[in-house]
Amino acid sequence: MNYDQIFDQAIERLHSEGRYRVFIDILRNKGAYPNARCFAGHNGPKDITVWCSNDYLAMGQHPKVITAMEEALHDVGAGSGGTRNIGGNTHYHVDLEHELADLHGKEGALLFTSGYVSNDATLSTLAKILPGCVIFSDELNHASMIAGIRNSGAEKRVWRHNDLEHLEELLAAESPDVPKLIAFESVYSMEGDVAPIHAICDLADKYNALTYIDEVHAVGMYGPRGGGITDRDEAAHRITIIEGTLGKAFGVMGGYIAADSKIIDVIRSYAPGFIFTTSLSPVLVAGVLASVRHLKSSSVEREGQQAAAATLKRLFREAGLPVMDSTTHIVPLMVGDPVKAKKISDILLAEYGVYVQPINYPTVPRGTERLRFTPGPAHTEPMMEALTKALVEIWDRLELRLAA
Amino acid sequence: MNYDQIFDQAIERLHSEGRYRVFIDILRNKGAYPNARCFAGHNGPKDITVWCSNDYLAMGQHPKVITAMEEALHDVGAGSGGTRNIGGNTHYHVDLEHELADLHGKEGALLFTSGYVSNDATLSTLAKILPGCVIFSDELNHASMIAGIRNSGAEKRVWRHNDLEHLEELLAAESPDVPKLIAFESVYSMEGDVAPIHAICDLADKYNALTYIDEVHAVGMYGPRGGGITDRDEAAHRITIIEGTLGKAFGVMGGYIAADSKIIDVIRSYAPGFIFTTSLSPVLVAGVLASVRHLKSSSVEREGQQAAAATLKRLFREAGLPVMDSTTHIVPLMVGDPVKAKKISDILLAEYGVYVQPINYPTVPRGTERLRFTPGPAHTEPMMEALTKALVEIWDRLELRLAA
Ligand SMILES: Cc1ncc(COP(=O)(O)O)c(C=O)c1O
Ligand SMILES: Cc1ncc(COP(=O)(O)O)c(C=O)c1O
Repeated sequence: MNYDQIFDQAIERLHSEGRYRVFIDILRNKGAYPNARCFAGHNGPKDITVWCSNDYLAMGQHPKVITAMEEALHDVGAGSGGTRNIGGNTHYHVDLEHELADLHGKEGALLFTSGYVSNDATLSTLAKILPGCVIFSDELNHASMIAGIRNSGAEKRVWRHNDLEHLEELLAAESPDVPKLIAFESVYSMEGDVAPIHAICDLADKYNALTYIDEVHAVGMYGPRGGGITDRDEAAHRITIIEGTLGKAFGVMGGYIAADSKIIDVIRSYAPGFIFTTSLSPVLVAGVLASVRHLKSSSVEREGQQAAAATLKRLFREAGLPVMDSTTHIVPLMVGDPVKAKKISDILLAEYGVYVQPINYPTVPRGTERLRFTPGPAHTEPMMEALTKALVEIWDRLELRLAA
Repeated sequence: MNYDQIFDQAIERLHSEGRYRVFIDILRNKGAYPNARCFAGHNGPKDITVWCSNDYLAMGQHPKVITAMEEALHDVGAGSGGTRNIGGNTHYHVDLEHELADLHGKEGALLFTSGYVSNDATLSTLAKILPGCVIFSDELNHASMIAGIRNSGAEKRVWRHNDLEHLEELLAAESPDVPKLIAFESVYSMEGDVAPIHAICDLADKYNALTYIDEVHAVGMYGPRGGGITDRDEAAHRITIIEGTLGKAFGVMGGYIAADSKIIDVIRSYAPGFIFTTSLSPVLVAGVLASVRHLKSSSVEREGQQAAAATLKRLFREAGLPVMDSTTHIVPLMVGDPVKAKKISDILLAEYGVYVQPINYPTVPRGTERLRFTPGPAHTEPMMEALTKALVEIWDRLELRLAA
């Protein structure tokens, strides 16, 4: 048994496939978003523009959020000091759960330390509570949902992405007595497309299945109150469990589910990933409270972000860049090769001060490596024009193909 | 298929076993630790004393920690805005990983969103990388380690708590060609006892096994620099992977591992629970940096805490209360019944303003329900005497047995 050799081989596999990851070391400059300082591989901090943040609406820099966190820091201190059951259940947590339940029109909500943990803990626990449960999972579901489904030990049926016929075929093949759960996302974050939520709920009704939707890339972003695509499409009441993150559009950190109080109580009582961990810092919770409340009543940020995304898509398209068919705020550019995607990203950073991370396997399937831009309300049109020009120059330099 | 009925039954099971959990809703008063305000079930906030916090050294209220967090909040904002790979790798994260590696005398360290996630992600990934790996797990290991081992799909051998003969028996039964990993804790948090680390490492050497230690309840607390029991016992260099939390003695939130750079690189590159999640808020990371640095050079907090724990154990013992045989800072009082443990806790809160949570299944085995006190440097001797008196009164009222 030579452990070192096995570890060496594991790392070598990544290098040989061109997908060994190097993290870019940055600090954002508060108040100057999307500006940041970049450290690694440069002589001293270098000024860059961030084009790949999931703090879509720059709420992580919003004065209301900062003030709320500062107040909590001075009122109660840094951490919660315990699990939710043992000393770590603060009044902030209780308030935020009410706020999130209200956001989605549900009876209750439950906080987790991240969106990843909320998916993993909820899906694995739910399927264990329902004996013989079969989970129907969209093939592009996020790694955290896949982890939860896998860890549940339940049977899994994978349906082709957004393919309702395939989903129905799989549902119809199971006995009516078997508990069923359909798990999917609203906005698919690497493609930018959206699930047909009402049609999926129709199938759930027909086959008596529960529904679980990951709205991680949609909460704060869609709907009159920022309740996500289920808010925009008036579908929240048809979904059994809505899951979201507090670390993207809401700008802070953490995750949650919203559902009937009974289901919330079951997950609260049985999910190890909820029970056996220090609860979210009250400082974070206070910041999220301010963020959610603000986005419930303000749509300026959402509108600014949608306008920026539309402009960037248009500029890319006009320049013949291979922008993917996104119907949302996400602007992915297909490259199709891990080495080239990294190369483009490296040139952008070194020569243009543009930071956009290459997206490779396992985040997307092999052969579909891409760049993923998330312009925000503060990315100006001149910035976008300069970015488009830079990309066209690099595409040319690397002899990449432009769209027909 | 009646889903509601299944959920109802799941909740009913908890009620009938007397272990349905009710969270106490509190806010700590910064600067007045262990004082707090309690909300639920009372008319307006009520003043209480917290006796069950895992913010053992009150670092969550330390001026250096608060100041560092405030500065980060104003410098970079609330959240990181991305995963470590996509925009969420800040300079704070890089600095803290160096600091933690140094704390344990290891080449590298890796941050996770919690101690739970660090255990789950590392153990499940490690065992998947090592084909045919067998994991040897102490029977009292924490739920997050059990989750990681389970999710790895590896074979598991459970050894009786701290029983070296049993561990050796199990190790000897496996072929030398099989990869082996011994997973255990340093301080067992519900008993307060300590693992025989050097003896376990001797067995690991003899049988060519890797070692994984959870120092969650020991980091910041033991050793001249707060590196945990492995620091105190000079055993860190013998352990393959040291795991810790940033949410207990360090007072904030988050988790980590420290190990050789090669192993860090493998986990960094392969663990979904590390890869696919928004990184820790830079505000938290800045607070932890201040906390770790302070506790590396200051032992006042550790000494004050140890003195408080020793006093409380003595007072309990002198009063004949059934204090368990703890050799650490943890002071557990055995009750042995979930309903009685909850009853004692309820009386303490309602009549004495004392907050100590009853500990029940699944946190401890059924029939060993207990109260678990964690006095800190700020709990005074008069407070401890009053607590002891209250407990004796309640023990008498409920006709519980005092120790012989
Ligand atoms: C679709 C989806 N679900 C869940 C998550 C996890 O959320 P969090 O970052 O809060 O852990 C992510 C990204 O991180 C995601 O893209
Ligand atoms: C032994 C042990 N390991 C790991 C954890 C998880 O750490 P965290 O609270 O940072 O998730 C805990 C408690 O929460 C614990 O008691």
